[in-house]
Amino acid sequence: MGKKVAVFRKEHFNAAHRLHNPDWSDEKNQSVFGLCNNPNYHGHNYELVVQVTGEPDPATGYVVDMKILSELVQEEVLNRFDHKNLNLDTAAFAKLNPTAENIAMVIYDLLRARLDEKLDLKIRLYETERNFVEYPA
Amino acid sequence: MGKKVAVFRKEHFNAAHRLHNPDWSDEKNQSVFGLCNNPNYHGHNYELVVQVTGEPDPATGYVVDMKILSELVQEEVLNRFDHKNLNLDTAAFAKLNPTAENIAMVIYDLLRARLDEKLDLKIRLYETERNFVEYPA
Amino acid sequence: MGKKVAVFRKEHFNAAHRLHNPDWSDEKNQSVFGLCNNPNYHGHNYELVVQVTGEPDPATGYVVDMKILSELVQEEVLNRFDHKNLNLDTAAFAKLNPTAENIAMVIYDLLRARLDEKLDLKIRLYETERNFVEYPA
Amino acid sequence: MGKKVAVFRKEHFNAAHRLHNPDWSDEKNQSVFGLCNNPNYHGHNYELVVQVTGEPDPATGYVVDMKILSELVQEEVLNRFDHKNLNLDTAAFAKLNPTAENIAMVIYDLLRARLDEKLDLKIRLYETERNFVEYPA
Amino acid sequence: MGKKVAVFRKEHFNAAHRLHNPDWSDEKNQSVFGLCNNPNYHGHNYELVVQVTGEPDPATGYVVDMKILSELVQEEVLNRFDHKNLNLDTAAFAKLNPTAENIAMVIYDLLRARLDEKLDLKIRLYETERNFVEYPA
Amino acid sequence: MGKKVAVFRKEHFNAAHRLHNPDWSDEKNQSVFGLCNNPNYHGHNYELVVQVTGEPDPATGYVVDMKILSELVQEEVLNRFDHKNLNLDTAAFAKLNPTAENIAMVIYDLLRARLDEKLDLKIRLYETERNFVEYPA
Repeated sequence: MGKKVAVFRKEHFNAAHRLHNPDWSDEKNQSVFGLCNNPNYHGHNYELVVQVTGEPDPATGYVVDMKILSELVQEEVLNRFDHKNLNLDTAAFAKLNPTAENIAMVIYDLLRARLDEKLDLKIRLYETERNFVEYPA
Repeated sequence: MGKKVAVFRKEHFNAAHRLHNPDWSDEKNQSVFGLCNNPNYHGHNYELVVQVTGEPDPATGYVVDMKILSELVQEEVLNRFDHKNLNLDTAAFAKLNPTAENIAMVIYDLLRARLDEKLDLKIRLYETERNFVEYPA
Repeated sequence: MGKKVAVFRKEHFNAAHRLHNPDWSDEKNQSVFGLCNNPNYHGHNYELVVQVTGEPDPATGYVVDMKILSELVQEEVLNRFDHKNLNLDTAAFAKLNPTAENIAMVIYDLLRARLDEKLDLKIRLYETERNFVEYPA
Repeated sequence: MGKKVAVFRKEHFNAAHRLHNPDWSDEKNQSVFGLCNNPNYHGHNYELVVQVTGEPDPATGYVVDMKILSELVQEEVLNRFDHKNLNLDTAAFAKLNPTAENIAMVIYDLLRARLDEKLDLKIRLYETERNFVEYPA
Repeated sequence: MGKKVAVFRKEHFNAAHRLHNPDWSDEKNQSVFGLCNNPNYHGHNYELVVQVTGEPDPATGYVVDMKILSELVQEEVLNRFDHKNLNLDTAAFAKLNPTAENIAMVIYDLLRARLDEKLDLKIRLYETERNFVEYPA
Repeated sequence: MGKKVAVFRKEHFNAAHRLHNPDWSDEKNQSVFGLCNNPNYHGHNYELVVQVTGEPDPATGYVVDMKILSELVQEEVLNRFDHKNLNLDTAAFAKLNPTAENIAMVIYDLLRARLDEKLDLKIRLYETERNFVEYPA
C-alpha cells in the first residue's frame, strides 16, 4: 500500500448572505441570529481551503495537479458563489440557511461529485478570521 | 516642540454592498463595475486600521488611550456599518457609491469630528486582503 | 447517523509567565528552561482556537452558536487568564508549570465541563506564531 | 495511559527548484508542469511546520523542548535545503522530482530518523500561501 | 483641489535569483552575499504591493479600477518575472544585481511608464515575510 | 542626487510589562491603565519592524545588508528586552512607563546611535495584532 499525502488549495470568494429560518417568527429569527438576520443582508470574504488526500502519482510527484484543482474550484464554487447573494442568487441556499456549516457541506458535495473516488476530500471555510468550519469533521 | 508618534488600532466589520451609478444605464454599470454591480449585492469582511498621530502625554505615555479609541470606532463606525447593507441601511451610502475609497473618506469624516484637533488622523481600509485604500494619501 | 462538522472560534489573551520546576535547583531550572526561567517573568500574546465538533442543528444550521461559544471562552478562559501573571494570579498554575502544553490541557478541562456531552472539543494554543500546541492530539 | 499533546514548530527556508520528469520528452514535461518546468528554475519561500505528538514529561511540562526541535530542523532540513537549488545542490532531489509532496516526504524521513520512537511526527509544508501539503495524511 | 486617496493592489510571483557582482572575485562575492551568492540560485515567493495615489473619479468612486491595475501588473510584471530565473531569463537583471531594492526600482519604472501622469506610484516588495523594501521612499 | 529606497526588517521579542505612573495613587493607576496596571505584570509577543532609508550602494544593490541590520537589532534590542520584565529587568524602563509609544522611542534611540548618519530610521512596534505604533510619525 502506498503512502498518502494531503494537498491543500486556498481560494476565496465574496458574498452577501442572511441567516433566517422561514418556519420561525421574525422575533425568534432576530433573537437567534441577531445581527446576522438583517433582512437587507450583510457579507463576507470567504476563504476556502480544499484538502485532497491520496497517493502521489510516481510519474509526477503530484496527488492532484493544483492547476486542475484550482480550475475545478473556480468552475463549481467560485462561478456559483463569488460576488453573489447566497440567499437570492443561488439554488443551493434558496431554502437552506447559509451558515458556514451549511456552505461547507454544499461545497463538499459539489466537489465530491467531480473528484476521483480514490481521493479523500475535506473542506475548511473561513467566514471571518475568527470563525471557521471544517467538513467532514 | 515635542516628538510625534503614530498609534494604530485595527477593527473590523462585515457588510453587504453593491457598486452602482444611478446616472448610468444598466449596461454601462455592468460594464464598469462587473460582478460588483450584482443587483442583489455581495459582501466583505472589512478590516479597518485607524491611525492617530500626536505627542504622547508624559503622564501616561499614551498618544490616545486605545480603549477609548476603540470605543469611538465602535460608536461611530461599527454601530453604523457592521452587519449592514451599506446601500440600503446607511444614510452615508444612500446616494454615494460604496467603493473602498468612498467608505474610507466617510469613516475619516465621522472620526475626525470626534477627535481632538491636535491629533492627525489617517484611515486604512482593507476590502479584501489584496485590495485596500488609505485616506488621506 | 448525522454528519459532523467542526467549528472553530479564535480568541486571544495576553499574560506573563515563567517556566520553573520547584523540585529542581536554580541551576537545573536555568539549564532546562533557559530564558523562559527568568525569575521576573516574560509574556506572550496567546492566540486560542477552540474547536467544537458535532452535528449541525437542522433548525439553525449551527453546531453551536458562535456568540455563545465566544461568551463561554470569555467567562472561563479570558476572565481567568487575560492580563494576568499565570504563575502568581491563577489557581490553575500556582503549582503547575505554565508551558503551552499545560495551558492547553487546563483550558480543555475548563471548557469541557461546560460543553454539551454530544460535542467533541479540541484546543489549539499559539504561544508565538512559531510555537503552538493542540490537545487532545 | 497518559494524555497526548501535539506540539508544532514553524521554520522556513528559501530554495530554487524545477519540476521535471527525465523519462518524458520536453513537450510532455512542458505540458504537464507548465511554468514550473522552466529549465532555469524558479523558487519559493517554503514555510515548514513540524508536528510532534506525545505525552508531556511531568517534570518539564514539555512534549519536546522546542529549542532542541528547532536545532534538529536546522541541522537536518535548513542546512540541507536553505538557499539551495533543490535539483542541483541536494542528493535527495538529484533524481526525485521536488514537488511539495515529495519534499514533505523527504523531510519526514530525515526527522523521523532522529526522533524518539515514542513520538509521532507529521510534516506540513507551504510552497506558497495558497498551495500546501501534509504528510502523513 | 480635490482629495487624494491611495489604493493598493497586492500580487505575487515566484522566482529564482542569485546575488552576485561580476566585478568582484568569487571570494568577495561569497563574503558579501553569503548564502545568497549560491551559483546554482535559490528562490522566493515575492509579494508585491502596488500603491497608486490620486483623486477618486466622482462618477465611479475609483482612483483606478483595480481590475485594470491588476491586469497591468500581470502584463508588465508577472509575465516578465513569475516562475523565472531573474538572472538568466530576464533582460532587466542580465547585468543588474536582483536585490529586493533593485527589483522594486525596476518594477516602478515598468509600471510608471504605463500609468497616467496624474497618478503617483509607490512599490512595496516582500522578499520574505521578514525582509521587504519600498520605493520611492 | 540618488534615489532613495526604504528597507524593512522584522524581528520579535517576548516580554512582561506593567503600565504604572508612580506619581499617581493606586486608584488613579487602576482607573487609567485598567487591566494593564496588574501589579503582577502581563506580557506580549512584540513584533518589531525596523525601517532604514537611503540610497542603494551601486556595488551591492543594498541600502544596508539585512544580516548586519538583523545582528544590530539582536545586539541592541533583543538582548536587552527579549524574555525580560521591562519594568524590573531593564534600565530603560526602570522609571519610564513601558507603553508601546515609549518602547518604540527607546528602540529608535538605541538603533539611531549605531546607524550611519546618511540613513533615516523609523520604528514600527506591534504590541498586539490590533494595537501598534510608529516613531517618528
